[in-house]
Amino acid sequence: MDDDSDIARLMALMARIPGLGPRSARRAVLHLIKKRSQLMVPLGNTMQAVAQSARECLNCGNFTTGDLCTICTDVARQNGQICVVEDIDDLWAMERTGAFKGRYHVLGGTLSPIDAVGPDELRIPRLIDRVTTENVQEVILALGATIDGQTTAHYIADHLSAVTVTTLAQGVPVGGELDYLDEGTIGAALKARRTL
Amino acid sequence: MDDDSDIARLMALMARIPGLGPRSARRAVLHLIKKRSQLMVPLGNTMQAVAQSARECLNCGNFTTGDLCTICTDVARQNGQICVVEDIDDLWAMERTGAFKGRYHVLGGTLSPIDAVGPDELRIPRLIDRVTTENVQEVILALGATIDGQTTAHYIADHLSAVTVTTLAQGVPVGGELDYLDEGTIGAALKARRTL
Ligand SMILES: [Zn+2]
Ligand SMILES: [Zn+2]
Repeated sequence: MDDDSDIARLMALMARIPGLGPRSARRAVLHLIKKRSQLMVPLGNTMQAVAQSARECLNCGNFTTGDLCTICTDVARQNGQICVVEDIDDLWAMERTGAFKGRYHVLGGTLSPIDAVGPDELRIPRLIDRVTTENVQEVILALGATIDGQTTAHYIADHLSAVTVTTLAQGVPVGGELDYLDEGTIGAALKARRTL
Repeated sequence: MDDDSDIARLMALMARIPGLGPRSARRAVLHLIKKRSQLMVPLGNTMQAVAQSARECLNCGNFTTGDLCTICTDVARQNGQICVVEDIDDLWAMERTGAFKGRYHVLGGTLSPIDAVGPDELRIPRLIDRVTTENVQEVILALGATIDGQTTAHYIADHLSAVTVTTLAQGVPVGGELDYLDEGTIGAALKARRTL
């Protein structure tokens, strides 16, 4: 199609980014080449830097460049509350509301017997450890309103009898995923959370 | 929002890619980090390679890694025809039809008095040179059916009296841009081209 195997390779790789198809990947590559010093060079460099440095926080599962993420090491955040989310984009969505001042715990998915995802495949044992060691009073389950999300919520609640376990209440549509909701809806759901 | 300034920077850069907004850029970054070895590392490397090596073919304006692109140096392509396009994505669109076997000439835009784009701002003098030196019999103007595109087509036709100048005929919608058309439409328009 074009004369440069690197360009063809770049188009093929770009087309694998969620949200870009083959056509939008071609237009993106053309744009990148035209803006090579302003956009393509910094983008390539930043991708390499992130690829080398990004890892999962040993405590909560959030992305970090060190052992612990800045949320886990931020002394200004409240210790008594842990908000449990399925994935890191849900943590980002929650942070954008500005409504939560505690810590997070990223499960890395939901329990799913069909896909053979049990508690040990997720970060659930680590959550149970944290509740004991971090002087936690409340665990807020901010999981999706899907069957697997709710199964996971009930499993966690059953295994955390020593603390209050709450869950996001109104505002989360049935079958909805957290990351697609607007900040207002998530904030309202957090405020109206109920004891599970 | 997240704890890593490189990740925040990557999201901001990704959001500047055409076709991705802030939300899809965040999801793309999360996907890239999860697929770091399969996708992010090769993408970062390929971007850097393309940024360093990609330049414009001295003859036709197509992207290349050397002085001349592989279309200009391909001995299997016909010398007698030059297809003139506004931009490189139009060349790609034309190549995808597989209907054209000649050479290309990328103008780099259209004449636009309002934007002070004259013939010297485009690759028009070079086109006139090529018609003389490359033994060209036909110049096919595959420009958009916009006012500026048609003004440019007429300007070029007026300055190329020694050769047949044709233009894509039926199939190009009025006001339409070539890159958005399907292969069949472009192929039909090429086949039914008329003398200008
Ligand atoms: Zn952490
Ligand atoms: Zn060329």
